[in-house]
Amino acid sequence: MTVIELKQDAPDRLVRTRRRGPVLRLEMNNPPANALSIAMMEALKAEFDAAAGDASVRVVILAAATPGKLFCAGHDLKELTAHRAEADRGRAFFERTMKLCAELMQTIVHLPKPVIAEVDGLATAAGCQLVASCDLAMCTDTSAFCTPGVNIGLFCSTPMVALSRNVHRKQAMEMLLTGETIDASTAKEFGLVNRIMPRQYLDQVVQKYAEVIASKSPLTVKIGKEAFYRQAEMSLADAYEYTASVMVENMLARDAEEGVGAFIAKRKPEWTGE
Amino acid sequence: MTVIELKQDAPDRLVRTRRRGPVLRLEMNNPPANALSIAMMEALKAEFDAAAGDASVRVVILAAATPGKLFCAGHDLKELTAHRAEADRGRAFFERTMKLCAELMQTIVHLPKPVIAEVDGLATAAGCQLVASCDLAMCTDTSAFCTPGVNIGLFCSTPMVALSRNVHRKQAMEMLLTGETIDASTAKEFGLVNRIMPRQYLDQVVQKYAEVIASKSPLTVKIGKEAFYRQAEMSLADAYEYTASVMVENMLARDAEEGVGAFIAKRKPEWTGE
Amino acid sequence: MTVIELKQDAPDRLVRTRRRGPVLRLEMNNPPANALSIAMMEALKAEFDAAAGDASVRVVILAAATPGKLFCAGHDLKELTAHRAEADRGRAFFERTMKLCAELMQTIVHLPKPVIAEVDGLATAAGCQLVASCDLAMCTDTSAFCTPGVNIGLFCSTPMVALSRNVHRKQAMEMLLTGETIDASTAKEFGLVNRIMPRQYLDQVVQKYAEVIASKSPLTVKIGKEAFYRQAEMSLADAYEYTASVMVENMLARDAEEGVGAFIAKRKPEWTGE
Repeated sequence: MTVIELKQDAPDRLVRTRRRGPVLRLEMNNPPANALSIAMMEALKAEFDAAAGDASVRVVILAAATPGKLFCAGHDLKELTAHRAEADRGRAFFERTMKLCAELMQTIVHLPKPVIAEVDGLATAAGCQLVASCDLAMCTDTSAFCTPGVNIGLFCSTPMVALSRNVHRKQAMEMLLTGETIDASTAKEFGLVNRIMPRQYLDQVVQKYAEVIASKSPLTVKIGKEAFYRQAEMSLADAYEYTASVMVENMLARDAEEGVGAFIAKRKPEWTGE
Repeated sequence: MTVIELKQDAPDRLVRTRRRGPVLRLEMNNPPANALSIAMMEALKAEFDAAAGDASVRVVILAAATPGKLFCAGHDLKELTAHRAEADRGRAFFERTMKLCAELMQTIVHLPKPVIAEVDGLATAAGCQLVASCDLAMCTDTSAFCTPGVNIGLFCSTPMVALSRNVHRKQAMEMLLTGETIDASTAKEFGLVNRIMPRQYLDQVVQKYAEVIASKSPLTVKIGKEAFYRQAEMSLADAYEYTASVMVENMLARDAEEGVGAFIAKRKPEWTGE
Repeated sequence: MTVIELKQDAPDRLVRTRRRGPVLRLEMNNPPANALSIAMMEALKAEFDAAAGDASVRVVILAAATPGKLFCAGHDLKELTAHRAEADRGRAFFERTMKLCAELMQTIVHLPKPVIAEVDGLATAAGCQLVASCDLAMCTDTSAFCTPGVNIGLFCSTPMVALSRNVHRKQAMEMLLTGETIDASTAKEFGLVNRIMPRQYLDQVVQKYAEVIASKSPLTVKIGKEAFYRQAEMSLADAYEYTASVMVENMLARDAEEGVGAFIAKRKPEWTGE
């Protein structure tokens, strides 16, 4: 596949976007920590929402603009603290922040396109939650992950929603109760990331994975991703009843007719996304 | 235990059966791919149903008739495609196929006897789902697993029900979104298989595991297997209320009286299955 | 932190307690197997209940009084068997036992303070369930774990509630169906324990972990532990709605104000537990 840079944003935007063919790369650009201020979360959510509606985008990569440092350090503590001076001691602002954060994370889960976290650095608190919320995650061998809210009196209660749906309970509890940092290799063992590699390969490998997924039928990927997270919350019987009907509708779509037909005829399928 | 071959089926049956003492071995025999045609799924389901009602069967092994090749490649794509010519574009047939497949998988889960997948080769799509649906799985070191429906426009939406109840989310998503094949050792790391071994040991080791389980009280195993999958879908409080009552009924059964008594008296228990 | 022995119990109590600063150590002392008789479960539950109400206790360690032998061998089979002579064949006593056991395990889960299992030896059946029910678990490299009820006709149906919420399904099923013992390193791989170490370090390392956690705000830890187990049983949407509100209340507590403020000002926080 020929790599084409379709768009390169102004370097001062909170979220830089870069297109390479069907792959949209979102780079968090809120130095030094890529803190999830209201503005940053709104910018990220806006980009994901735009990607949802843009048929030319097949896969989204979520990365940091500056490699090797902080992927994302979670909430903007200074912004939160500034609102303590308000009459309600900040309650309304905290509610707005937490609501927006929960929406952002669920936007990733419900996005009809796969999202790959590309991590080169430290992902902490809600930054670790971003990684856990993505469908796939790849990182450099020097990356690290933690949920250290407990150290500052603010337990990582929203991050643990995503974290505990990625890793075993005792492993999540160790991270949450001690605030300790796990290295890339532990994160892979735990199931928080899919692949680890040296820095010089990261961008290329993640792009390659994205392109592999982008080469599939976008309709099929959309059907499958949605069904995955829905069935995960169902009983076995309900999950089978639901996914059996998903399979039937999928079979009746043009892309499955084309894909199955091409497989039988040993030719390459041509997707129309229908 | 003396190994006695009780029965050896005609070689052309879709599912060959072999008995060695209390262990029933089902061998899928639909070359070259052991595709899950309607006939194949009905044959498998019939064998599992028969095993459920046969008190002499204590454990079931699910294997392929031809070792080293395809364990099972999932749905019969040619059969499915043939029905596209029908007035409803195949909908009724697809519905029948998916319903039967979901029933087959749940038959394994609800079978009152343990089922061990014995894999020597490639298990793909609904074939990988078969492995995930069994209580235990053992495989050769050259076996491999994948859910590649995404490659042919048909996401592995029913296979993922079983897969995502065996392995972590990001690992399942990597298999589902990329269609990539994982080797035996990755499958063990992920939790999809219990044991890996060189081919020359597979049959013997799986049979040994089956015999170990077959030496337990069949009533106890039945109680435990049923309770396992039921409590897995409950809240912690409900699961404890339910399993506490299961334990009381289990304690009142003759086999627990015998087993606990034998343990205290340091003698071998004699099960009656009551 | 200076280690101060606040209290050392009489050596013949069923549960010995030892205080080192904010860390309460409970030592099961019912030789030779630390069997969970009614008296033992009541003694343990009473200690946990007392710890819940004692603000000076920040973390609880659950250990065996005699290192290197049995951590806990589960239910007291002789006590259970003695009640078979009763008119109801023991039903009422079995019900009392299972109810108390389920309460004990849930007392650990709902305790507003972290509980660390410190294992040096064999943890079987309900003893393995104790380990699985703790928030964290650390063990010596010679420790081992099993759920062997199936061997005596009494499936480990209540232990599997905790076990199956710690490890993958096939791994739990292998332990439950075969009764086989897994070593410390397998237990870590499975996710049943967090850390393994040689015996000479165990006490010190577990105490250190306990002190690290005890140095956090007790209010924050209480909020987080409760939220962890509650959100784990919810759908993603419900979990986010619930934990977002938990985060807001946490932010409004004095300890978060202090902790976040101290972090921004780069000073050490002073917790008040409010």
